[in-house]
Amino acid sequence: MRLVTALLLSGALVFPQADLRATVSAWVDAHRLAVIDELRGLLAIPNVAADTPNIRRNAEHLREMMAKRGLAAEILETTGNPLVYGTLNTPGARRTILFYCHYDGQPVDPTKWRQPDPFTPVIRGDGPDARMFARSASDDKAPIVALLAALDALRTAGLAPTSNVEIILDGEEEAGSVSLVPAIARYRDRLRADLMIILDGPGHSSGRPTVAFGARGIATVNLTVYGPKSGVHSGNYGNWIPNPAMRLAALLASMKGDDGRVLVTGYYDGVGPFSAEERVMIDAVPDDSDRMLRTFGVAEPEKAFPKLQYAIQYPTLNIRGLASSFVGAGARTIIPDRATAALDLRLVKETPPDDLVAKLRAHIEKQGYHLVDRDPDDETHMKYSKLARLEVDGPPTNAFRTPVSDPQARAVVASLTRTFGQPPVQLRTLGGTVPIAPFIEALGFPAVTVPTVNFDNNQHEENENLRIATFLDSISVIAALLRM
Amino acid sequence: MRLVTALLLSGALVFPQADLRATVSAWVDAHRLAVIDELRGLLAIPNVAADTPNIRRNAEHLREMMAKRGLAAEILETTGNPLVYGTLNTPGARRTILFYCHYDGQPVDPTKWRQPDPFTPVIRGDGPDARMFARSASDDKAPIVALLAALDALRTAGLAPTSNVEIILDGEEEAGSVSLVPAIARYRDRLRADLMIILDGPGHSSGRPTVAFGARGIATVNLTVYGPKSGVHSGNYGNWIPNPAMRLAALLASMKGDDGRVLVTGYYDGVGPFSAEERVMIDAVPDDSDRMLRTFGVAEPEKAFPKLQYAIQYPTLNIRGLASSFVGAGARTIIPDRATAALDLRLVKETPPDDLVAKLRAHIEKQGYHLVDRDPDDETHMKYSKLARLEVDGPPTNAFRTPVSDPQARAVVASLTRTFGQPPVQLRTLGGTVPIAPFIEALGFPAVTVPTVNFDNNQHEENENLRIATFLDSISVIAALLRM
Repeated sequence: MRLVTALLLSGALVFPQADLRATVSAWVDAHRLAVIDELRGLLAIPNVAADTPNIRRNAEHLREMMAKRGLAAEILETTGNPLVYGTLNTPGARRTILFYCHYDGQPVDPTKWRQPDPFTPVIRGDGPDARMFARSASDDKAPIVALLAALDALRTAGLAPTSNVEIILDGEEEAGSVSLVPAIARYRDRLRADLMIILDGPGHSSGRPTVAFGARGIATVNLTVYGPKSGVHSGNYGNWIPNPAMRLAALLASMKGDDGRVLVTGYYDGVGPFSAEERVMIDAVPDDSDRMLRTFGVAEPEKAFPKLQYAIQYPTLNIRGLASSFVGAGARTIIPDRATAALDLRLVKETPPDDLVAKLRAHIEKQGYHLVDRDPDDETHMKYSKLARLEVDGPPTNAFRTPVSDPQARAVVASLTRTFGQPPVQLRTLGGTVPIAPFIEALGFPAVTVPTVNFDNNQHEENENLRIATFLDSISVIAALLRM
Repeated sequence: MRLVTALLLSGALVFPQADLRATVSAWVDAHRLAVIDELRGLLAIPNVAADTPNIRRNAEHLREMMAKRGLAAEILETTGNPLVYGTLNTPGARRTILFYCHYDGQPVDPTKWRQPDPFTPVIRGDGPDARMFARSASDDKAPIVALLAALDALRTAGLAPTSNVEIILDGEEEAGSVSLVPAIARYRDRLRADLMIILDGPGHSSGRPTVAFGARGIATVNLTVYGPKSGVHSGNYGNWIPNPAMRLAALLASMKGDDGRVLVTGYYDGVGPFSAEERVMIDAVPDDSDRMLRTFGVAEPEKAFPKLQYAIQYPTLNIRGLASSFVGAGARTIIPDRATAALDLRLVKETPPDDLVAKLRAHIEKQGYHLVDRDPDDETHMKYSKLARLEVDGPPTNAFRTPVSDPQARAVVASLTRTFGQPPVQLRTLGGTVPIAPFIEALGFPAVTVPTVNFDNNQHEENENLRIATFLDSISVIAALLRM
């Protein structure tokens, strides 16, 4: 009886989800200036992770924003920047959702922005494409404001969330969220939930609500091929002393086919084939390839992965940088002493970093190389005609992927479908990496990402911006999550 | 009758060449301090090509040094630094030799030298390995002083040169000798000879007199493979957007076999097979490969060219630099917009630069690339899936090579053989490039190089030095040339 009462009070049994969008939209229309103003005020507090005093000001401000709404709000101290935590229980709710956002932002170089101060928001443009320009406008302060606005809108409509709500706001995501996993041990009780929903990142370019079930991980490695101990004259010794840049080229070329497929043995082991359900989901993602290819100036994608949504289901072997001696003004006619490729390996759930790196090592050895773990000494130079080093460059971040069939994830999709009259864009995985993957792993319950801001927000760059119409629409998206 | 008198006077008919070395050595022993002092005085005048006032002081000083010996000496003005010219005729001589040296030197960074001033010579070491440290000690002022000392030694012995002697001293060799070819038109009458002998460069590491019949040329080119218009996120688009660094690697790898042999069609056309005479000459060069490999820290030379002297008979395709985005601190996880290899192609007589570059272009096109001659515009980006640019980077320098059978060149070898009791080290070609190759070509008569200074002279670098014993021995070598 108490359960039924609670559900009646919260409106869950009486309010048709199909009306939610219109209800929230009406509220947004009436309160848009106040919502935008609240965002503007939050953006005015500088939030580079290393700027400790301002990070603290952000945290205090956010705690107050939550408290004002009646959430039990507090600041959780960590070994790094503080977390802001809030909770709102709905009596009788049978699910707890942990919403994750971050309140820190990328560093800024004000000289590259069109406005004098990236922390003094500027609105430019008219009508549907009006945008607010400021650091963290999209990444990731807008979702915080939208989440609290969604709670306001529901309350005005007499609707409580259908789940217990927990909110955790990270203060160092752009610095790698290093204090997040250690904080779990300290705050385990506050971090129990059935589902984490990450409100971060750009939505699909179609503008439709988007749910992502995972993200690729990343490992970065440097591959160096050694030549003579120091550069030697290319005239006196050219054709005779082997060239490490040419050898690096051949070694890299041996790793990938002309079609873009990685040839390292076992690199794709365990990935695919995809189930019928997965294929349906992947194929249902709206294809805006042509527009993307035009934007990037690329005539044709890799032949092995003609469809982007399939391409990102596989791990990558990407050259992010090449260096050997000099090109351009400093170029000298020498056989260089070494050549290095900086690689990044995007990981999927089935391909942990150690495994891929081990396969890469085996491949290099199979090409006749002796691998060293530091620059070779004279003796090593004379002992091996092919010398290389594969150096893991910083700790890897694992991939995460919540099963498509997970009931909590399905509930997210179902609620968005009911609210918007069509299923959201469902991404089996994002191509990129989220630093909170270890946090997801450590929490031990499923997580999905609901990215809500405009895809062209110039995230991480100068002139970061938020399309205001998309932002205001996202309040309905989040309301649907609160009422799932 | 007058001819016989002249020859008697010059000692050509009465003086056995086998005694020349002892005679000159005795003179050198008696005059070593004066010779070293003359060199020291010359080295004390700074000689960086761009330092016009000091270059002029060098030229005046050198003109006086020649005039003091009774040479008709003058300064020849050019569009750049002045040439110093001297001539000494021997009545009845049937051959005219043009000796070429240069009096300018490489720029200096005094902070990297062990001595305060690279233009204040310092002698270090005792006994046979005593060395004089100064800019241009070896490259190329020592040969000038040795040449004039050889004339002094012969005169003291009552021996005239057996050829008419012309000396031309270049004032901008280290800056590319750009005024040299234009000067020919103006001074054609002074530059007629039967043979040019270039006194420049390090002798063979065996310390034996050395004659080189040619030098490889050089063309430098930059090869760029284009990717997306600007770098794109390697997570969001990895596996889908082709990576230009990987494509450059594959393209470079297609150009050379694992054994170091160039696979570009026709690259070696016209080179070899070598005649029996050439093979004898190449095989007779003392092999100090093991020492060189140890010095460089290389376990094994290219399999296609295990012998250095054969390796340098062929044109090269050398990667002197690689660049794409960043490696190390600035590395970003992107698919770069482009990747560039800086290449140098060492040329031999049979492989002119235009021809090799055309073959390289054809090879790149055969790999499916559309070649552009500037950065591609949007339309070009969308039209071709494989885009590259091959840019010739500055004017090439041709190879030169005087035929091994050339009578004047044979006379040089014969004279050195008679004087030293064994044939000199004969190099069919040097591996490196000499900027005066166009000068040789324009003059139209044969040229050989007789490099006389120690091989380990740190030429072009800090702490350039001259092994004094080698320098003093070179006076006998040059005397043999004057008496050939």
